[in-house]
Amino acid sequence: MRMYDLIVKKRNGENLSKEEIRFMIQGYTEGSIPDYQMSAMMMAIYFQGMNEEETLELTLAMEHSGEVLDLSPIKGIKVDKHSTGGVGDKTSLALTPMVAACGIPVAKMSGRGLGHTGGTIDKLESFPGFSTELTPDQFIENVNRIGIAIMGQTADLAPADKKLYALRDVTATVDNMSLIASSIMSKKLAAGADAIVLDVKTGSGAFMKREEDAYALAKEMVRIGNGAGKKTIAVISDMDQPLGYAVGNALEVKEALATLRGEGPADFLELCLTLGAQMLIAGGKAKEETEAREQLQHVIEDGSALKKLAEFVEAQGGDPAAVYHEALLPKASMIEECRAEQEGYIGHIACDEVGICSLILGGGRETKESTIDLAVGIVLLKKTGDYVKAGEALAVLHANDKEKCNAAKTRLLKAYHITQEKPVSAPFIRNILQ
Amino acid sequence: MRMYDLIVKKRNGENLSKEEIRFMIQGYTEGSIPDYQMSAMMMAIYFQGMNEEETLELTLAMEHSGEVLDLSPIKGIKVDKHSTGGVGDKTSLALTPMVAACGIPVAKMSGRGLGHTGGTIDKLESFPGFSTELTPDQFIENVNRIGIAIMGQTADLAPADKKLYALRDVTATVDNMSLIASSIMSKKLAAGADAIVLDVKTGSGAFMKREEDAYALAKEMVRIGNGAGKKTIAVISDMDQPLGYAVGNALEVKEALATLRGEGPADFLELCLTLGAQMLIAGGKAKEETEAREQLQHVIEDGSALKKLAEFVEAQGGDPAAVYHEALLPKASMIEECRAEQEGYIGHIACDEVGICSLILGGGRETKESTIDLAVGIVLLKKTGDYVKAGEALAVLHANDKEKCNAAKTRLLKAYHITQEKPVSAPFIRNILQ
Repeated sequence: MRMYDLIVKKRNGENLSKEEIRFMIQGYTEGSIPDYQMSAMMMAIYFQGMNEEETLELTLAMEHSGEVLDLSPIKGIKVDKHSTGGVGDKTSLALTPMVAACGIPVAKMSGRGLGHTGGTIDKLESFPGFSTELTPDQFIENVNRIGIAIMGQTADLAPADKKLYALRDVTATVDNMSLIASSIMSKKLAAGADAIVLDVKTGSGAFMKREEDAYALAKEMVRIGNGAGKKTIAVISDMDQPLGYAVGNALEVKEALATLRGEGPADFLELCLTLGAQMLIAGGKAKEETEAREQLQHVIEDGSALKKLAEFVEAQGGDPAAVYHEALLPKASMIEECRAEQEGYIGHIACDEVGICSLILGGGRETKESTIDLAVGIVLLKKTGDYVKAGEALAVLHANDKEKCNAAKTRLLKAYHITQEKPVSAPFIRNILQ
Repeated sequence: MRMYDLIVKKRNGENLSKEEIRFMIQGYTEGSIPDYQMSAMMMAIYFQGMNEEETLELTLAMEHSGEVLDLSPIKGIKVDKHSTGGVGDKTSLALTPMVAACGIPVAKMSGRGLGHTGGTIDKLESFPGFSTELTPDQFIENVNRIGIAIMGQTADLAPADKKLYALRDVTATVDNMSLIASSIMSKKLAAGADAIVLDVKTGSGAFMKREEDAYALAKEMVRIGNGAGKKTIAVISDMDQPLGYAVGNALEVKEALATLRGEGPADFLELCLTLGAQMLIAGGKAKEETEAREQLQHVIEDGSALKKLAEFVEAQGGDPAAVYHEALLPKASMIEECRAEQEGYIGHIACDEVGICSLILGGGRETKESTIDLAVGIVLLKKTGDYVKAGEALAVLHANDKEKCNAAKTRLLKAYHITQEKPVSAPFIRNILQ
């Protein structure tokens, strides 16, 4: 078999067989197929696409290009959750203790990643002393004992995807639904869960700006997951403005804590209940949604979800008191309001821009080497549809540097679009696919 | 400027500017743009194409990626000729002394290349002692003194094309008209002639199998050449069966010598007259075709073309007696007839296959390191439209190895398709574009 012939085949609009896809991914991972042939193939796929079978085979080939985690020593049905990412997305912080409190074992391997804020691990490090450096034995023991553990990514999960994504990123071949879906799903499948709940975001702060694209991606990923024999459900949710009010690591932790106390923002709570319900159903803890939501509401009301978070933080070396006393979490030295220049309705918030403001303040990573300031960020006071008077505060910036604060403030003001007519609101949860 | 952005632009169907194309070719030649980005770009061009302006700019950028020959020390209008290649294509051997005898200065830089037979230089080496190792001064002096010189390619002509073609060859991005045309024309333009006559072949033995593709390529190359300020003419000629009767290095030299004596095959003579006439007109030696053909016929009839070849061979160290005495040329040790198994008309000859038979006999190069046997090859006795009886000879194989001879014979027999109806013949010269 020659890679050249596979490129010709795909270029001419033919389908690649399972054996051909395996040959290609194995050869690329090992280095016998060079980057320049793979990038030509990726561009051919960009134009000619891949059918359902090819997409599934590509995912499976990438999944098996490295280690596939064996979570069988952990009792119960392991349900993983993945978000396509957005601004103010602190979902894991509240959702994992909620579902763990309901009896779903949470065994997550997480990365740090680049972006507007840090990843889940960075956010969790807001708890003084918290660490994800667990041995595999400690990891499994913790999940079996308290129902939840998160460790840093030590295993070599889906190395083919890592190499291929880096290539696609510099050759303008990222934007293809089959390639995006197989990239995400190969890593998720390699992480070893029994079922997967996907949170696919749509809107100005999401990777998929248009709802039809989010729908297509969700459909593709659900098809792959189920095709690979893992129950997979996708929720499509709004990311046309930040999720909740807080953007920034410790600020998001505080909002997640408020949510676990029953004092969270409506949109964020709704997302946790929707995703959590699907996880409980997939994990066999509830028969249908109403029942599942009641269980989730219950673990908030009786404080057991918050307690679960405290247990988890403590088990990984963090100070559990910080779960109950926010003063123990990182705090910025400067508080600055961003005020409206005119009266009217908030017609739209450029969600991406709010994320960039967080990055400017120091809350995210521009490169792998950047250090994150956990304390800084933005707390929105007004969201889309709210009415604001001239001079009234739209948001509060938490900063540790005057210059960065000013730059972020100017940019944040521009992210708010004030109109005279009240905007029509779209539903927060757009769709659930399975 | 970033290569990534240029890939996105082309991928999305936009046109690249002159500056962008120059940036791309310069960066790729220097190595600052990696192969994997260039191959993604080539595949994007395969799907989205390039317009006339982009194609011209790409050609000019590649032309100027290395040395551009300065032929100004040579007196007169220098007219170059280029063939897209085929089986039995010995055109340069007869045509260059013909036009030189008519007063067109011939200053060619040639390569050896891979293929069914050697290149022009290999064929000329059939003359004992002949060499293309001239200094630039000798080269110019020879052209000014006797009107003709051919030297091996020493200058670094269009290195960007060399690098890009090697990449396209392994990434399935050769088949695009703009890329093919710019590749050929960048080298031709760098070779420094004042005018260019192109011989574009079509049919089963040509790179362009279909006449409409040959036409499109010819049109594109003529447009590029004229756009670059060099008078350019393209002749589209038949390559659905071998040109003339001889295929193989010394065998082709003998056929070229016969043609210069006025005893050549009709199709080959017609091609020399057609191309030669265009060269004479472009070089200002004739006003129109009839006049030009008369001049060319004249230099055959009075022996001056043959004499010009002898002068040229002698000036480059070869034995001029071999021009008049074929016995001095290489001769194979074995002669074997290939006989028809049935009676009928030759309906079609698989031209590519005849070329492969020459390669099997040892007449061509499979890799750069292969050595060529100048003596071997095939002389066809029957061509398309001829009638043959069962047991009658179709062709004669000239070989130096019994096993190779048998293998070539079996294959050659299969290349002949015998039918009961006389095939309809197509005109040999299909079109002339300028």
